[in-house]
Amino acid sequence: MRPGGVLAVTPNPALDVTYRVPQLVPGRVHRVAEMAVRAGGKGVNVARVLHRLGAPCAVLGLGGGPGGARLAAELEADGLDVRLVDALPDVRRTVVVHGADGVTTSLWEPGPPPHDAAKAERLLLDSVLTGLPDSGAVTVSGSLPVGVDPELPLRVAALCAEHDVPVVLDLDGAPLRAAATAGGAVLMPNEDELAALTGERPDTPADAARLATALLHTGPTAVVVATLGARGIVAVGRAGAVHARLPSPVQGNPTGAGDAACAAVARALARAGSAAALDLRRMAVDAVAVSAASVLRPVAGDLDLAAYRRLTTEIVVEDPCR
Amino acid sequence: MRPGGVLAVTPNPALDVTYRVPQLVPGRVHRVAEMAVRAGGKGVNVARVLHRLGAPCAVLGLGGGPGGARLAAELEADGLDVRLVDALPDVRRTVVVHGADGVTTSLWEPGPPPHDAAKAERLLLDSVLTGLPDSGAVTVSGSLPVGVDPELPLRVAALCAEHDVPVVLDLDGAPLRAAATAGGAVLMPNEDELAALTGERPDTPADAARLATALLHTGPTAVVVATLGARGIVAVGRAGAVHARLPSPVQGNPTGAGDAACAAVARALARAGSAAALDLRRMAVDAVAVSAASVLRPVAGDLDLAAYRRLTTEIVVEDPCR
Repeated sequence: MRPGGVLAVTPNPALDVTYRVPQLVPGRVHRVAEMAVRAGGKGVNVARVLHRLGAPCAVLGLGGGPGGARLAAELEADGLDVRLVDALPDVRRTVVVHGADGVTTSLWEPGPPPHDAAKAERLLLDSVLTGLPDSGAVTVSGSLPVGVDPELPLRVAALCAEHDVPVVLDLDGAPLRAAATAGGAVLMPNEDELAALTGERPDTPADAARLATALLHTGPTAVVVATLGARGIVAVGRAGAVHARLPSPVQGNPTGAGDAACAAVARALARAGSAAALDLRRMAVDAVAVSAASVLRPVAGDLDLAAYRRLTTEIVVEDPCR
Repeated sequence: MRPGGVLAVTPNPALDVTYRVPQLVPGRVHRVAEMAVRAGGKGVNVARVLHRLGAPCAVLGLGGGPGGARLAAELEADGLDVRLVDALPDVRRTVVVHGADGVTTSLWEPGPPPHDAAKAERLLLDSVLTGLPDSGAVTVSGSLPVGVDPELPLRVAALCAEHDVPVVLDLDGAPLRAAATAGGAVLMPNEDELAALTGERPDTPADAARLATALLHTGPTAVVVATLGARGIVAVGRAGAVHARLPSPVQGNPTGAGDAACAAVARALARAGSAAALDLRRMAVDAVAVSAASVLRPVAGDLDLAAYRRLTTEIVVEDPCR
């Protein structure tokens, strides 16, 4: 990674397995006609998007076993800087069954627990620490392997704060609740996660802005970037709030759209140097454009670069509190 | 393997992956609560059943990659004599989704082709040849990896015939059609396979006996053992025909029941020394009892030994041509 790049921490990477069948029918035996296996997990998508944007980055996570070796080999072959800690017996698989009838069904394996969870956490933190001097920003994305301390992302964020490296947290469940106590971090909840954090579901961008503002007032978070799917992004900081959205929705594959937005936010953060110095409007526009450009590609982590450049000029920016 | 044992050839072994979910709903994302990975494939089941019966056996097949290593390690840990040829990039997985609603859905991966199919075939035949001096019988079960010659099981059978080792063939599709030309072999078709071979679907054990007899008269096969599910087994040889069945059906897991029957037939063949010397009645009774004892266990390859001993005294034997 070139200095100032983004360290994409993915504590629980996956092998994304795709099966193609004519139609998935419960109770039947399906001979899978075609399958593909690809490195996945939210942090892997973040790193792939940054790499596609030509932004310096490295992907760091818990790996191990034959799946970990396969994942690392694939990402390295794609030119990524990969730093997997050998801590798991294997990495989990996410199986996605594509029916020719247009129905997509997913089965997410829980993944095996680390051989030694405390050691896995320590090794991951050590690896982050080693990477911090060259990092302009850090992202922590996705779930944790079974048995790992839900506070691990919070501990990564604390380490980043100690070393003045800004951090973006895109988490869910208990790790998200813990991470909401991280000082100076950028939180990236989607609608469900914002509801889980605040107890209220945002029905409109104005709701999202109000809930995000409440989060900032009650906790140490620096910026909340709420991803609202086709309705765009609401970014709220100490200086104000902005809502960025597409003029009209794009059709495509929404898997990984949130990770693409996370990559854009991290790149903006690495350039700004701190969450406080972020140009929220510019960041939100870029995040919506990158996210939409990822929807236009059939696989998560990829981008339609021409569409990205075009979209950056078309994004609609509004005051969500109006 | 002790001399006189059964060499269970499984050209396309698998890792059987089991997912437990509340209910499989097409179009949804399912977080798999519980999963298990187990060595599988028809020939692996044959070897497991023989091992459970205390009969000498070895399992021989195409392996390779991380899946092959995992499969071999598991079978060795279970005390089996494992001889996998390193020829595949990986072994295929069969994913079985068990819903808590009682619905079971299967997804069978095609598996990757061998690095070099001709070499894989040669290595498998060499390994069979090496095992023949100690083998009382050979079984060839299940599918072939993509790209492997459908005549490979026939070539295994020819090698066995050359060395006077009796062989049982439990195959499907093109390999089954090719294997029907193997001299002196025991064929084990189920109802679908018998229909594919003869062009007529057996509705009754009498039909199965008639179709099996026709097969013996038109080809070089020595014995046909037709497995008819809950209706038992029809065994037809030069000396006559026999129908063996349970007095009443057993409830349980039918996966692997045919492989259990194959194991019993192979053990009988190893004891008899040749297909011509088989006691068809005794063999059919034993095969139905072993098969039913496997149905009583939740996983393929396992047996309820107490039920097996009891069932052997209860099997009903009839003349299917009466």
